[in-house]
Amino acid sequence: MPADSSARMTTKTTRLAAAAIAAATLCLSPALSAQDNSATADSLAGVAEDALENDPIAWDFVEGITTEVGPRQAGTEAEARGRAWAMEWLRERGFENVADEPFELDTWVPGDVWKARVTTPFAQELIVQPLGNSAATPVGGMEAELVYFPTVDDLRAAPEGSLEGKIAFISHEMRPAQDGSHYGFAGPARWVGAGIAASKGAIATVIKAVGTDHHRNPHTGGTSFPEGIDPIPAAAMSVPDAENLERMFERAGDKPIRLSLELNPRRIGIQKSGNVVGEIVGRNPGLPPVLLACHIDSWWNAPGAFDDGAGCAIVAAAALNAARIGQPLRTIRVLFAGAEETGLWGSKAYSAAHIDEPIAVGLESDFGADRIWRFESNFRGTNADLHSKLAKAVARFGVADSTIVATGGADLNIARDQDAAIIDLQQDGTRYFDLHHTPDDTLDKIDIAQLRQNVAVWTSVVGILANESRAIRTGTPIPSAPAVMDE
Amino acid sequence: MPADSSARMTTKTTRLAAAAIAAATLCLSPALSAQDNSATADSLAGVAEDALENDPIAWDFVEGITTEVGPRQAGTEAEARGRAWAMEWLRERGFENVADEPFELDTWVPGDVWKARVTTPFAQELIVQPLGNSAATPVGGMEAELVYFPTVDDLRAAPEGSLEGKIAFISHEMRPAQDGSHYGFAGPARWVGAGIAASKGAIATVIKAVGTDHHRNPHTGGTSFPEGIDPIPAAAMSVPDAENLERMFERAGDKPIRLSLELNPRRIGIQKSGNVVGEIVGRNPGLPPVLLACHIDSWWNAPGAFDDGAGCAIVAAAALNAARIGQPLRTIRVLFAGAEETGLWGSKAYSAAHIDEPIAVGLESDFGADRIWRFESNFRGTNADLHSKLAKAVARFGVADSTIVATGGADLNIARDQDAAIIDLQQDGTRYFDLHHTPDDTLDKIDIAQLRQNVAVWTSVVGILANESRAIRTGTPIPSAPAVMDE
Repeated sequence: MPADSSARMTTKTTRLAAAAIAAATLCLSPALSAQDNSATADSLAGVAEDALENDPIAWDFVEGITTEVGPRQAGTEAEARGRAWAMEWLRERGFENVADEPFELDTWVPGDVWKARVTTPFAQELIVQPLGNSAATPVGGMEAELVYFPTVDDLRAAPEGSLEGKIAFISHEMRPAQDGSHYGFAGPARWVGAGIAASKGAIATVIKAVGTDHHRNPHTGGTSFPEGIDPIPAAAMSVPDAENLERMFERAGDKPIRLSLELNPRRIGIQKSGNVVGEIVGRNPGLPPVLLACHIDSWWNAPGAFDDGAGCAIVAAAALNAARIGQPLRTIRVLFAGAEETGLWGSKAYSAAHIDEPIAVGLESDFGADRIWRFESNFRGTNADLHSKLAKAVARFGVADSTIVATGGADLNIARDQDAAIIDLQQDGTRYFDLHHTPDDTLDKIDIAQLRQNVAVWTSVVGILANESRAIRTGTPIPSAPAVMDE
Repeated sequence: MPADSSARMTTKTTRLAAAAIAAATLCLSPALSAQDNSATADSLAGVAEDALENDPIAWDFVEGITTEVGPRQAGTEAEARGRAWAMEWLRERGFENVADEPFELDTWVPGDVWKARVTTPFAQELIVQPLGNSAATPVGGMEAELVYFPTVDDLRAAPEGSLEGKIAFISHEMRPAQDGSHYGFAGPARWVGAGIAASKGAIATVIKAVGTDHHRNPHTGGTSFPEGIDPIPAAAMSVPDAENLERMFERAGDKPIRLSLELNPRRIGIQKSGNVVGEIVGRNPGLPPVLLACHIDSWWNAPGAFDDGAGCAIVAAAALNAARIGQPLRTIRVLFAGAEETGLWGSKAYSAAHIDEPIAVGLESDFGADRIWRFESNFRGTNADLHSKLAKAVARFGVADSTIVATGGADLNIARDQDAAIIDLQQDGTRYFDLHHTPDDTLDKIDIAQLRQNVAVWTSVVGILANESRAIRTGTPIPSAPAVMDE
């Protein structure tokens, strides 16, 4: 198992890794001031190949933040510690203009009482965790009859008022998929299920966790309530718990199944968060920068190794590696967005603050740490040479070219708002929803060989982009905020 | 994944399974009164082959008890519900002389507050659960410096009094093994670690869970304290949490790591438990019976699918299947022992109550639901023909013969106390310690194909034993309580 080998490596090689990083940083500094600024494909490819075998930087970041900080719920002191940790790390590795760009958000916290128990006919405790934006139950809990909906569509079909005084149980199936596409199929149970149930009179909602594993992990995540509908208590139960409940319905026949539920999440009002930024300053800082995004926050229950410590680790390592062949032409900026999980607050704040500063191209890493398998851009038709050059550079790492038009991830609002160039480096998401928003999102789940493949691919792409002198025209007209400048 | 397929089967085929069980039960009743009592190898083999492909009985038991009862902590009302459920199930399937043989035990319960948090230098919560016999912390918890011992031997080497006012952290590595043998290597951290730490002045102990998985499951289990040493709070943390703590020690250098810990387990005095027994009565009830053992209790945190719902399911199915070829010569008795996990209370009580009633042979199933791979007896030298006949009967199911002398499991105290014949049908334990004593011990972990292989093997063995007219002499002298009678 990769888990086993990487976990062992963790404790044993921390000091070795630190030494290697020091060496890498030493390499970087002379390179940044080197006179030979011609980024040859050969040297970049060599750096990327080296990263594939040896990169110590990404592992150091994700090991560090999961060990020294852990979970980083948006708007809390833990997220603030995460920002402080990341800024120190960036500065130590030679990033410039490292800053915490503050913003505010309306903040929800989960509390610490999450109890569910079938009281009749088959008394048994269930493992649950609240969904983001869940209301609290009364202290001491509530008890009511469960109504079982195999899918959200079944819930939608329930008559108005038919759930008065009852608790909705929404189940469904989520399947692993390399591209994670089944999230779109199963996700609505979490995203809108509680709101629909509340609008039909339900006093609470429990769902089968939106996840693909069979561990007792209730995958959390945000839910939302329509305008005019007061939030109700809403919790996810683990997949094994939900399957057990399905079997109870099968065995209970006409006997009602009653659930006692106690949750104490709460809103704590407007709190501070921030976006951490840092730069490898380019030779021509006037050119639009290459923006590499990820997010620094995680759900309270998850140490955030896959989601998204790995993403920040990959983009930071790629920025440093790309600079090893010489100071890049363009500035490479990393954006570790805050408060992504609870509503893309950081991504929106960053776009609002920087909308008038065009970026050359945006990329994001936020889908775990498994291998990249597909390259996509939104300039295949308009900058065919560059697309082709990038595709060729990553092919050696097992990455396929694609005609799919890149749209960017959650933290690339600014790229979409600017109609800028976007690249998506699609990772293998087969395992992603085993871990997503759960306590199991721990360092041991990261396979360092696959993490390094990510760094190698990103190094190749970022190295080329940061030394591209031409503007990257996209296929989309740019009415107001020009992403592309004639340089 | 087996987990996936079996989980799907669960809800979809409950009714089908019920119908098949009804059919199987119908088959049984005529068979029990059939005139053709010559158990031919052919017909027994046919029943076993059928079980391999189709057995619905074992799945019905383990699905039923995990769904309708769930965790069954020794000495609690949940265990009592488990006994009641099992007795009803046995009676419905045609077992006779079904009874709950009561006994009492000094009872420990886990409470419901299990909190651990590193407070400095890397503030982060850890997931812990108390070990059986753990003391409680003060309400509100305790906080102290952690002292890290990579192994129990390191703890043993610590000077007397060196842990005054501190919390011991005992780590170690446990590896998966087909025969589970690494439990002997890693187990002492749990079995005796807290007692050793307490004797050196520690105010609490936390251990890396004795388990082979990398999920956030703190494997619980019993610990013990030497005479004269007062119990201290003792908890297991999940393997990922313990590895994180190891990394903290690596990164903290000389800075002390402090842990805040709150646990509220307690002793609730003498409580009732019981052993559930049931019989397929033989044609000659005067002959010593074949005893098939398992245990009905589980730790409070575990629904007890692998440990040991599956074991009771396998032995019950085998007893019913063996009777399908005609009423057996000897009585087949099942023993679903109570309170195994907290100290083999049921096994001891059964032996004390029945020591003067010789058994012909004892077998136990208590190592999950994965394939049986080896056959062992303790009469290979003294009843070579029978050993050979049994070994030949199970070879078709991929089970190897062995020269290892069977010693029986935890619930076979009576067999050892009587120096009786014992057979061990060794299961593949590679996955066993992923699930052992954790919330993840759920039905979905059972691969029905492997469960049925167990039933097929057991059916073969029990069918032969129950129709064996000769006494099964063992290699051990029998000084007082004769297991073997001249019949």
